[in-house]
Amino acid sequence: MSDESKKYATVHYNNYLGLDQLLGSQKPKSAELDVEPAHDEMLFIIVHQAYELWFKQIIHEVESVVGLFRQKKVHPRSIGVSIARLERVVEIQKLLISQIRIMETMTPLDFLDFRNYLFPASGFQSYQFRMIENLLGLEDEHRITYNGEPYDVVFDKKKKKSLKDVVNATSLFEAVEDWLERTPFIEFGDYDFLDAYKKALDRMLKKEQKAITETDYLTDQEKEMRLKMLGGTDTYFHAVLNKEAHIERQKAGEVRLSYEATIAALFINLYRDEPILHLPFKLLVTLIEIDEALTTWRYRHAQMVMRMIGNKIGTGGSSGHGYLNKTAEKHHIFKDLHGISTLLIPRSELPELPQVIKDQLDFNFKH
Amino acid sequence: MSDESKKYATVHYNNYLGLDQLLGSQKPKSAELDVEPAHDEMLFIIVHQAYELWFKQIIHEVESVVGLFRQKKVHPRSIGVSIARLERVVEIQKLLISQIRIMETMTPLDFLDFRNYLFPASGFQSYQFRMIENLLGLEDEHRITYNGEPYDVVFDKKKKKSLKDVVNATSLFEAVEDWLERTPFIEFGDYDFLDAYKKALDRMLKKEQKAITETDYLTDQEKEMRLKMLGGTDTYFHAVLNKEAHIERQKAGEVRLSYEATIAALFINLYRDEPILHLPFKLLVTLIEIDEALTTWRYRHAQMVMRMIGNKIGTGGSSGHGYLNKTAEKHHIFKDLHGISTLLIPRSELPELPQVIKDQLDFNFKH
Amino acid sequence: MSDESKKYATVHYNNYLGLDQLLGSQKPKSAELDVEPAHDEMLFIIVHQAYELWFKQIIHEVESVVGLFRQKKVHPRSIGVSIARLERVVEIQKLLISQIRIMETMTPLDFLDFRNYLFPASGFQSYQFRMIENLLGLEDEHRITYNGEPYDVVFDKKKKKSLKDVVNATSLFEAVEDWLERTPFIEFGDYDFLDAYKKALDRMLKKEQKAITETDYLTDQEKEMRLKMLGGTDTYFHAVLNKEAHIERQKAGEVRLSYEATIAALFINLYRDEPILHLPFKLLVTLIEIDEALTTWRYRHAQMVMRMIGNKIGTGGSSGHGYLNKTAEKHHIFKDLHGISTLLIPRSELPELPQVIKDQLDFNFKH
Amino acid sequence: MSDESKKYATVHYNNYLGLDQLLGSQKPKSAELDVEPAHDEMLFIIVHQAYELWFKQIIHEVESVVGLFRQKKVHPRSIGVSIARLERVVEIQKLLISQIRIMETMTPLDFLDFRNYLFPASGFQSYQFRMIENLLGLEDEHRITYNGEPYDVVFDKKKKKSLKDVVNATSLFEAVEDWLERTPFIEFGDYDFLDAYKKALDRMLKKEQKAITETDYLTDQEKEMRLKMLGGTDTYFHAVLNKEAHIERQKAGEVRLSYEATIAALFINLYRDEPILHLPFKLLVTLIEIDEALTTWRYRHAQMVMRMIGNKIGTGGSSGHGYLNKTAEKHHIFKDLHGISTLLIPRSELPELPQVIKDQLDFNFKH
Repeated sequence: MSDESKKYATVHYNNYLGLDQLLGSQKPKSAELDVEPAHDEMLFIIVHQAYELWFKQIIHEVESVVGLFRQKKVHPRSIGVSIARLERVVEIQKLLISQIRIMETMTPLDFLDFRNYLFPASGFQSYQFRMIENLLGLEDEHRITYNGEPYDVVFDKKKKKSLKDVVNATSLFEAVEDWLERTPFIEFGDYDFLDAYKKALDRMLKKEQKAITETDYLTDQEKEMRLKMLGGTDTYFHAVLNKEAHIERQKAGEVRLSYEATIAALFINLYRDEPILHLPFKLLVTLIEIDEALTTWRYRHAQMVMRMIGNKIGTGGSSGHGYLNKTAEKHHIFKDLHGISTLLIPRSELPELPQVIKDQLDFNFKH
Repeated sequence: MSDESKKYATVHYNNYLGLDQLLGSQKPKSAELDVEPAHDEMLFIIVHQAYELWFKQIIHEVESVVGLFRQKKVHPRSIGVSIARLERVVEIQKLLISQIRIMETMTPLDFLDFRNYLFPASGFQSYQFRMIENLLGLEDEHRITYNGEPYDVVFDKKKKKSLKDVVNATSLFEAVEDWLERTPFIEFGDYDFLDAYKKALDRMLKKEQKAITETDYLTDQEKEMRLKMLGGTDTYFHAVLNKEAHIERQKAGEVRLSYEATIAALFINLYRDEPILHLPFKLLVTLIEIDEALTTWRYRHAQMVMRMIGNKIGTGGSSGHGYLNKTAEKHHIFKDLHGISTLLIPRSELPELPQVIKDQLDFNFKH
Repeated sequence: MSDESKKYATVHYNNYLGLDQLLGSQKPKSAELDVEPAHDEMLFIIVHQAYELWFKQIIHEVESVVGLFRQKKVHPRSIGVSIARLERVVEIQKLLISQIRIMETMTPLDFLDFRNYLFPASGFQSYQFRMIENLLGLEDEHRITYNGEPYDVVFDKKKKKSLKDVVNATSLFEAVEDWLERTPFIEFGDYDFLDAYKKALDRMLKKEQKAITETDYLTDQEKEMRLKMLGGTDTYFHAVLNKEAHIERQKAGEVRLSYEATIAALFINLYRDEPILHLPFKLLVTLIEIDEALTTWRYRHAQMVMRMIGNKIGTGGSSGHGYLNKTAEKHHIFKDLHGISTLLIPRSELPELPQVIKDQLDFNFKH
Repeated sequence: MSDESKKYATVHYNNYLGLDQLLGSQKPKSAELDVEPAHDEMLFIIVHQAYELWFKQIIHEVESVVGLFRQKKVHPRSIGVSIARLERVVEIQKLLISQIRIMETMTPLDFLDFRNYLFPASGFQSYQFRMIENLLGLEDEHRITYNGEPYDVVFDKKKKKSLKDVVNATSLFEAVEDWLERTPFIEFGDYDFLDAYKKALDRMLKKEQKAITETDYLTDQEKEMRLKMLGGTDTYFHAVLNKEAHIERQKAGEVRLSYEATIAALFINLYRDEPILHLPFKLLVTLIEIDEALTTWRYRHAQMVMRMIGNKIGTGGSSGHGYLNKTAEKHHIFKDLHGISTLLIPRSELPELPQVIKDQLDFNFKH
């Protein structure tokens, strides 16, 4: 029969979902080694399996978005599609965070009923989780070492290679950075965004400093605090107005995003009310949310480990709690996008865009 | 001193938030009437107050969106802003649904410690909730009566008038309906969307019917089921291809959205991958989510009432559980937008848009 | 080597969790049948697989609790253990409800990219879900028929038999009912709980009726409403004071729980402040929460189906939305425990327990 | 009319909830100072007001539990009641964590529309939040200083005094510590729990060390890791077996809970399957959950501040993000209860309790 006809074959829920295979893959050690299985080992296995299923889905989504953004020209249709897929990742991450709550219904004493059999298995051996980190753009040199060894020491040759390949290929971080760097209108004819922004900044700072200094509503001490809150070009705003300073900060590991991409992200944040910048802005927000959710998950994971084993050494040989807490602190990927907030100025101080740019950032037709 | 200077006056958290007023507004009846106050009455009051605070915020957001959409020409910037505000409403609604969980920590016996003092107060007397329903577009004639009386019988003259005024003014439903009706490109030069859609539909149905009938993979009984699942122009797709039939369904109360707005919503759903249709599509999805969340809240509320008082008569004199359940079933506002799914056909069957329209639906510039 | 020594063998995360098998069980039809796979079919598969994993866990927990309660004498230790396991089920159910949110990130149009390949697969074919219903105690005669056929028509002989066996064995409902019927102290020496409750009820109703009738604070109409809210022995409280009436209601399908178990549940609810009744009370509350969560899941599931396919016929041949909505309404299992709230009276009206019973309901030692 | 009669007066939802007062307490600065109010200032106010409402409820619950536990003899009924109230606190905390999500729907640029008017208001000025910390048991000497000043510098004299009074009175930490210290059966006739535990520990460690050393399933390196995971009396278990060491750790600020209370908490954790220890165990778990939720809230709060203002100085004059992150790390209150997990041994190694104690820990009657 023709291939086309196959499309009309029947399918059963059980086979379609591979349920015999799926529901046959729980093999509690205590059922094998003890007279009476530890009741909660099933939960322990299923919680981890659910994590791995969702990790597969996250990889599916992030890979597809990297594919769309890796292009020299990102198709306008791709932005909306990418946002939808990354928002889905955020929804999944929220579920993964909630799932910790279920693991916590297992008490430390119940865990001890089978914990000894797990040596030296550990979440550090989750290949898919490492893959997600690499796809998003966590770099080997920024990784916290684990028992003084590289993170991939627990994987076989083939998996090591796959992980390395992904690090060497374009990550989501890099693809977005490239795309940002190509943002038009930053310099356009006579218009120079950075120059306009700098002038607005100076104007605002001077006006505010004057007003604060002259007001009768504040004591001297309050004026000082208020000026500190205002900040100055010499402090927060310095780096972005100065390419050399930015490069220094990159070298020092304080920032990672390129100078040009940073400027573009600032531009998009400031002018996101323009119709066509709305989706790029939304994309940047979604990346921040992925980072935030990933970090929250690490934090909650660390809490859960602390609660489960206290200061005991983990089955994988490390202080689980300590390691996880450190990754929550250090393994940020899109931190520089959060940092853009430092550079924002109020809408009321924002320089108008030239009409020619506004027109291009508007829709072609009006509702 | 100048008005401008006032902007630099200091403000304390306590005053800014009106905390003396806010935290002084809990007056448990049992503290006044009993020797020993009922411990849980505080919770009862605070849960309801938190609801009312959030209702105020929802009204703030919906009113602003109605304002933006009530215009003869909706500004392109307004779409992004409106989506953000409506998405915020959805986030608030999710919180309100979670909040029921907190109320449920009060047991029925604890409620009985002060329930008698509440007569005839009841959630039916929440003015803001009625305002939200009216702003969204619930019409008086679709309301389920409550003890056989109009819903606004519990309010004073002034509040009755305000509620009526909102019903008479443009609701979110009506503003969106108007905006949809103005969607361009439904008919454009030679192009007639409805005609193209109808042809694609016929083509698809014929092809599928033939393939199903001829396949060897299905038994006769299965073929019959499969054809039923496919449907036909005479059933699901009928109404939208026939203005008279749609108007009949409107009269019968089966649909509410106008024929033209329905066609436009279908167009936006089918071609939402075009860059400029992405935000309109997102807006329609957000309206569906508001409806879904509102209905879920009603459903959970009914569950909670059932749990709290069983089949007792409510303090307001009605069977709370029964009434709430009925509103969960009937008080949908954007149901017709859900219904659009019935009319969709697979992307592979979708007729191409003429290039001239595609160009207009694209961004002005490319990343 | 000895069996004991095996306990010290090493284990890898990947093998322990059967990840090759688990992560190899996603087989999208569109990848097989189309040139380009439908991106969202992976999500569709993984969402359903995650459901099935958690169903397995729920079965694991409910089976163990039924095992503990099926005993002629339920061990006191078992109550605490059972509550913990059932509370875990509730936590899992909350996750399953959240998970619908993830499915909803798939739009109707994306679903259509592969929906045709799924015929006649459907969630109705989930064996584990039916198993959960049967374990909890849903009876065949209370099931809503599906396309006019018995619910198990979609399963093979072996699965049909397993489902039937569980129906014939003791369900959680029945095990709890038996345990409730054995509650001591309902009649104890001179003490007759039902008699004491009836007297308290009469006393309260008379006192309240008199106070309402005589107060100057209420108009005549308000007095009437207030008396209606109070209710009387002839209405809400009737059935529980009258075994014959209860049996009539059982026959009419209005209640399911036996008369004796209902009285015991009332006793536990009224005197749950006694130390030893705290855990039995908690158990009853947890059963209510399981029921509530199951029903909410059905409701949200129905919403999601409506959103996804509108009024189209489901892949399984039914109106998915309609069927699911009906099960949300009818497939309650522990509804009679909710109903206990109808029978409660305020603590201030509660007759004191005899000291001899209070002593037995107290802890042996004091902190 | 008699006082009793007042109980039958009517009440309206609007007055009962003080809605005129409640809904009249939102006073956006931008509405007063600007031509056009900043749309999102309403959200900013209402989010904070909702926090303060819930803080009031948390204080209501924690105060009542401290009241119940401050007694020389905690009534057995009080344990169940306290758990229910503390579990309610946890539910509220979960809501407060979700609420951050709503605040995050405000973008940094929208915040800048009114941020300047807030100086020097700040969440650091929340009196109720400090009260919660003090009621739970956060001690002044453990507080992280804020801009180098005591935390209460922002409050007036009266509030400073109230906060100080609560610090000087019994906190929840101290009340629970006292109650734990009074746990019976730790020493009872011939039975000495600590001695039995120590012997079981030695037995287990020797058996495990031997088995690990002798197994053929492990390499030498693996054996070393495995022994490290096992730990020894000289490391983790040391302190609890040695009062002097514990006191040293207390002095060094490593632990706070008294030696006797720690032993009791260990006893309750190990023997929590005994019927009467179930509720005390549950109480300890709930305290851990309160701590965990409080810390998660601080963490999410820090994330949100980072996202909102980046590295700008907060309106209150501090690096909000940095301060909050530090409190998430340091302001744990029940950390020592988490730490008990370190000391647990598997049930299979647990020494049997003497029958006379088991009897006392059992219920008086059997179901």
